[in-house]
Amino acid sequence: MATNMAPKGMRDFMPAEKRVREYIKGIIRDEYRKNGFIEIETSQIENLENLVDSDGGENTKLIFKILKRGEKLNIGEAKGENDLADLGLRFDLTLPLTRFYANNKNDLPQVFKALQMGYVFRAERPQKGRYRTFMQCDVDTIGGAGNDVEIELISTIYKTLSRIGLKGITFKINDRRLLREIVSAAGFEDDDFSDIAITLDKIDKVGEDGVMKELDSKGYDAGHIDALLSINKTFKSEGLGYAKNLHEGAYENLSQIINVVTALYDDIDIVFDYSLVRGMGYYTGTIFEAYYEGSTSALGGGGRYDNMVEKMCGISAPACGFSIGYERLVDIISDEGIEIPGSRYLTYFYSESDDMIEVMKKADELRKDFDMVSTMLKKKKFGKQVSKLKKEGYSHFCDHSNGEIKELE
Amino acid sequence: MATNMAPKGMRDFMPAEKRVREYIKGIIRDEYRKNGFIEIETSQIENLENLVDSDGGENTKLIFKILKRGEKLNIGEAKGENDLADLGLRFDLTLPLTRFYANNKNDLPQVFKALQMGYVFRAERPQKGRYRTFMQCDVDTIGGAGNDVEIELISTIYKTLSRIGLKGITFKINDRRLLREIVSAAGFEDDDFSDIAITLDKIDKVGEDGVMKELDSKGYDAGHIDALLSINKTFKSEGLGYAKNLHEGAYENLSQIINVVTALYDDIDIVFDYSLVRGMGYYTGTIFEAYYEGSTSALGGGGRYDNMVEKMCGISAPACGFSIGYERLVDIISDEGIEIPGSRYLTYFYSESDDMIEVMKKADELRKDFDMVSTMLKKKKFGKQVSKLKKEGYSHFCDHSNGEIKELE
Repeated sequence: MATNMAPKGMRDFMPAEKRVREYIKGIIRDEYRKNGFIEIETSQIENLENLVDSDGGENTKLIFKILKRGEKLNIGEAKGENDLADLGLRFDLTLPLTRFYANNKNDLPQVFKALQMGYVFRAERPQKGRYRTFMQCDVDTIGGAGNDVEIELISTIYKTLSRIGLKGITFKINDRRLLREIVSAAGFEDDDFSDIAITLDKIDKVGEDGVMKELDSKGYDAGHIDALLSINKTFKSEGLGYAKNLHEGAYENLSQIINVVTALYDDIDIVFDYSLVRGMGYYTGTIFEAYYEGSTSALGGGGRYDNMVEKMCGISAPACGFSIGYERLVDIISDEGIEIPGSRYLTYFYSESDDMIEVMKKADELRKDFDMVSTMLKKKKFGKQVSKLKKEGYSHFCDHSNGEIKELE
Repeated sequence: MATNMAPKGMRDFMPAEKRVREYIKGIIRDEYRKNGFIEIETSQIENLENLVDSDGGENTKLIFKILKRGEKLNIGEAKGENDLADLGLRFDLTLPLTRFYANNKNDLPQVFKALQMGYVFRAERPQKGRYRTFMQCDVDTIGGAGNDVEIELISTIYKTLSRIGLKGITFKINDRRLLREIVSAAGFEDDDFSDIAITLDKIDKVGEDGVMKELDSKGYDAGHIDALLSINKTFKSEGLGYAKNLHEGAYENLSQIINVVTALYDDIDIVFDYSLVRGMGYYTGTIFEAYYEGSTSALGGGGRYDNMVEKMCGISAPACGFSIGYERLVDIISDEGIEIPGSRYLTYFYSESDDMIEVMKKADELRKDFDMVSTMLKKKKFGKQVSKLKKEGYSHFCDHSNGEIKELE
């Protein structure tokens, strides 16, 4: 007999979990909307070539591919995976968004502030806390080039997380243009940028020594590595000010965003981190991540991807987005025991001998006062049945035969 | 360059469409819950063998199969599709529900009233109004054998559709046990039941002649066909009463459900239809469908599937469910022009020279009074910009430089 579990890395959600998930989704949607983002929905399934040919970086290796159907499938002549598959499950919401924008731009506002919430799929090796399908909650602005876009995105994410009940949110911020200058100033080739950046990204975890060893083992020039670590030291002592010498545009951009965001909210923390990289190949400018208290893994992140729309449809449109890692958020809410508002649930008991018409009519009346009224056949062990209800989240009960509403304690 | 459309039979949704979709989803969820159904979520991806080995009837031929990954995929040795794929996209919510119940039954209420809303996927030939992925909104009761379950399901669906604004809902109802007796009484073999039933199901559309021709072309005995059509005539004149002779249990069942449901609501219409079949192989007793006014295609349907849980996990548990065809519902809402409640949207204009901190603070204040406040850079052609907003659903606007909130007319 086949297993009754969901497939590896996939999940089902029990009533209590689902309640938390829907509550959090509701807040995120409402706060995103309140801040001017309008909701759209994109297909979970994409044409495979769109996914494979994208700038999705490592994620393009993690695509769940869907087998061709009918006559299109020719197993005997297939040489590789892409002969067998024509569709794929999306690995993020950004690629579908740019495809959507390219397809509908004439019917969308010139500055399009988009809200998207939905599942994405990645065929990663399953491990604790990492799933093969998870929900993303994104806000993106397409058509805005100024850094008011970044300010609005960070501010919206901050307000959303605060409203859910998370205190002590820190944002890390950097600019890809600056990062490129750093790698170039140290003497590395431009072509090596992505590879260097991947290693540099780990400096928080492995330290300068770790970065040095990894770059050395990759065969990079020792002088360039020294120069990179020297830049690291200078940033440590001089902070953002040092960026002015490397890329003035990025410096101005980062300074203004940090100044405005800091002035807006008393308990927001936004720090420049020149070693923040983010994996995606498509970022062109500002990049940022949100952290909760001492946690080392991000609650969400995003950045500016000004070239992606043009690549998709030939029309230039600056774009910037921020995605909340919804599953991490749900885990934190559970771990921290943050309470979500309760509902008034009532069980309405009846017996085999009761008139079903009367029972149903009475239950409908009670539905005006309660969030949920569940009719239920009364069992012989009534006391036990009632005490079990409490565990299932019911707050009140009533027996049709006496009509008295009692509160469960 | 690849197409920017969603794949064939899949869809993206524009802001106005998404707003209607979320509104309807919200009502369905709330009304289902109000009636005692608790929400769960199941994985969209299932182990392929669970889908293939199910009683899903025709739907098992429409599975989107997911290619194996890494070492598991051996193209050279593959003989058929199922050597290449190990996962599949679900084609309904009922199979995942029974798997979920089998997996979690000890932690669920003994009578489990489940609510599920989610996408299902079927690789059908795309055509107008038929999609390859669509949302289903299901209520199911597992663990209840009495027909109070059916009454509650029909009543819940009726209340949900009414609340959305649909008047004139008709339910058709039948019982699979009766249908089996009819086919058997006409002289057909039990093994031919499914095949006969598929043809009989079309009698509303093709008439007695059409049914006769189709059964004849399938090679069935002319005497048996005559007997079947004679039973049809008797049902036409005698109605449900005639069922008593064929299957007394089904007759009692149908009578009670029809009587109670009719007594509950003034404008509900529930009619016995002995030729109602429904495609799924797993139904064992009551089956029903909901129709809107004169429409010939159902808005939703369901029935009793008492053996499915046992087949899945070896433990007997009666079950019955009803699924709303959400996409048809959304189409009807749009076609009928049923209005959904509006929101108060405000655009807050600012200029390049304005202080972003002040702009953002003022916008946050206004968010207490409006459902959505979108900050926006003021353009030179301000009048044109404002008049365009109305089309996008904004109701109010305000210019930071003068602070006066104006209503769009």
